[in-house]
Amino acid sequence: MKLSQNFTKTFQDAPKDEVSKNAQLLIRAGYIHKEMAGVYAYLPLGLKVFENIKAIIREEMNALGAQELQMTTLQQASNWTQTDRWTDDKVDIWFKTALKNGTELGLAWSHEEPITLMMKQHVASYKDLPAIVYQFQNKMRNETRAKSGIMRTREFVMKDMYSYSVNEANHQAFYDKSIDAYHRIFDRVGIGHLTYFTTASGGAFTQFSHEFQTICDAGEDVIYIDEQKKTAINKEVFTDEVIEQLGFSKGTVVEKKSAEVGNIFSFGGTKSEQLGLTFVDQDGSTKPVILGSYGIGVGRLMGVVAEVFSDENGIIWPESIAPYQIHLITIGGSDSAQQACQELYDDLRTKGVSVLWDDRDDVRPGKKFADADLIGMPHRVVVSKKTLEVDMYEYKKRTDKESKNISKDELLNIVAK
Amino acid sequence: MKLSQNFTKTFQDAPKDEVSKNAQLLIRAGYIHKEMAGVYAYLPLGLKVFENIKAIIREEMNALGAQELQMTTLQQASNWTQTDRWTDDKVDIWFKTALKNGTELGLAWSHEEPITLMMKQHVASYKDLPAIVYQFQNKMRNETRAKSGIMRTREFVMKDMYSYSVNEANHQAFYDKSIDAYHRIFDRVGIGHLTYFTTASGGAFTQFSHEFQTICDAGEDVIYIDEQKKTAINKEVFTDEVIEQLGFSKGTVVEKKSAEVGNIFSFGGTKSEQLGLTFVDQDGSTKPVILGSYGIGVGRLMGVVAEVFSDENGIIWPESIAPYQIHLITIGGSDSAQQACQELYDDLRTKGVSVLWDDRDDVRPGKKFADADLIGMPHRVVVSKKTLEVDMYEYKKRTDKESKNISKDELLNIVAK
Repeated sequence: MKLSQNFTKTFQDAPKDEVSKNAQLLIRAGYIHKEMAGVYAYLPLGLKVFENIKAIIREEMNALGAQELQMTTLQQASNWTQTDRWTDDKVDIWFKTALKNGTELGLAWSHEEPITLMMKQHVASYKDLPAIVYQFQNKMRNETRAKSGIMRTREFVMKDMYSYSVNEANHQAFYDKSIDAYHRIFDRVGIGHLTYFTTASGGAFTQFSHEFQTICDAGEDVIYIDEQKKTAINKEVFTDEVIEQLGFSKGTVVEKKSAEVGNIFSFGGTKSEQLGLTFVDQDGSTKPVILGSYGIGVGRLMGVVAEVFSDENGIIWPESIAPYQIHLITIGGSDSAQQACQELYDDLRTKGVSVLWDDRDDVRPGKKFADADLIGMPHRVVVSKKTLEVDMYEYKKRTDKESKNISKDELLNIVAK
Repeated sequence: MKLSQNFTKTFQDAPKDEVSKNAQLLIRAGYIHKEMAGVYAYLPLGLKVFENIKAIIREEMNALGAQELQMTTLQQASNWTQTDRWTDDKVDIWFKTALKNGTELGLAWSHEEPITLMMKQHVASYKDLPAIVYQFQNKMRNETRAKSGIMRTREFVMKDMYSYSVNEANHQAFYDKSIDAYHRIFDRVGIGHLTYFTTASGGAFTQFSHEFQTICDAGEDVIYIDEQKKTAINKEVFTDEVIEQLGFSKGTVVEKKSAEVGNIFSFGGTKSEQLGLTFVDQDGSTKPVILGSYGIGVGRLMGVVAEVFSDENGIIWPESIAPYQIHLITIGGSDSAQQACQELYDDLRTKGVSVLWDDRDDVRPGKKFADADLIGMPHRVVVSKKTLEVDMYEYKKRTDKESKNISKDELLNIVAK
């Protein structure tokens, strides 16, 4: 993409009411647009990161044998009254609306009930199980406050997966596989080394649920990490009893602020019983299906990456999710620099390397360098009269302090897959 | 995909309250799930068709130089009061909801206002134009009645593109290019020969807008086609004056029921003036940006295809959007038939041909054939003891009446890209 043709601009300042670092950076760099507090649109650069993250998650979900579908935002009350999650005193983040005839509808803040009810039409026998489904779909949550940028929003896309199993043993085997898949996702997105499998509250259904928590100052959680076990306990369940049960020791854990980037949850048979999702087992008996639920907020994950991989100059995208691999800058309006860039641009794209080319001829070099740091591609390449004279490219990794001159072969070695 | 692992079932009957042919077929075949009247979820097979259609549209939009983004469903009143489209007496299909503090929000039924307001942050000079953006995003419309299946729904994904140009001439040039792109889309989806560029009412902004209307008994429109011109006039503007203006003749037009599958619209500078999207032109003067709007309802398009390409036995997907190219059926539980299918399945997939394999061992042949017709893949291949004996495959196009035996090479010639 040529920057001269990209409609978004960069900004010196973020909107005054925007207090979170991730949204400040993402707005200034032209990745997102703030529609209102807690509601953000994704501009072309932002949508690319978003889709790159989705593609990684989708690959890992498909590898688990999960089938992708897409449920709806508009929801009938009857889906939720059966599990007593319709009224505001039970679920305090509902957005509701109404049909012309006055019938109240809810905007889905979760899809456990609708998906489980849909499953009733397709599951009758043990032969129909396991069934693993997932979606990327909007969730609407009427948060009282929304101050964490895209890390906690009123409208967001969640990858939510649901597993339907014949018994606890099969459920647990899949649950364990999903943990591995989640670790792979966070590794691939670039935050694996900062992310801990964390024991958290199970709510009404089980003793514990499990979260994936990424160390992050902007996070809303506090976790206690056992570096040897490479796992953690959420402060909400960090009691003497749980510490002992999980084999942790108060003396060796490290307390950290963290952001939840994923959570997985066992419902047992309770929700299926409430909703009537049963199956006939091999022995002829009727049993409730065992349900597991597995979430990742795509925007939140992107926000956490922007929080933890950024410096005073801007964002530093991991290669796996960067909108483009190379930020190419033409310095000076000479035809030869422009032509050399065009050749490199074409050549790299032919080789499958994505390039954001700052070909603007009315922008001074200082602004071009500042934009490159702000937008945050992993690799920066500069072509100028000076580099042309020595037949080299000026190269800098986004994380490097200093640039260096390298040959085209060296450049290709760095960026070619 | 092996049918034994696909969680959706087929059904003999559609829900009693479902009156539209497209939804009846799509529900019975396991493509969609009816959440409520006018609100449908997309199950794995349905999502594949949906994504195939999106991919075709996306290619054509990108080829126009349009940049993809994603706006939000939750909308502030202030976006819409400026153009007097917030109140129910002006727009009668709003769904509205509210924040905890009582602030009323709208659920986007269109995105012209939000996108144009977002653009104000990025467009200031003629150098910033043209800007062409598009999205695939939910629209929520509070329809009083919803009886046309996925052709008219209360929640649906629209591809909406917006063009921002410096003047009418540039706008018109892009508008004309978009018409060609739309024709390519409908050709590629398989309904080009049934689809007419149609002059329709322009509402408050221009004399005419333009629609793409597909001949379809379930459509809600009536058009008058001039077969020589290959264009049509919508009944709503079919007056003597318009007939003369467009060079039509009452004597030669053919009246048809049709469904609108796309519409394009010129706003001139009016909306930009209302919303304050202006730019400084080369001569230093400040002018409103010229806006065009270009929509395609993805679900509606899928519904129209299901309406026009179906018979009494089920759906007949065009190859370009079918979820799988081949429906492979194993007849008889013999190991040799199963093994021959496995080999063919692996081989075709290696060659990039997608296969839905009915490997179920507890389903009788009659049901398998009925399911193949209902689900509607373009090509059906049967492997049985009989075909193995002659080392052939029993092949039938979904549109053929009779099957025939063909060799593997012949099969590959038919389905290989």
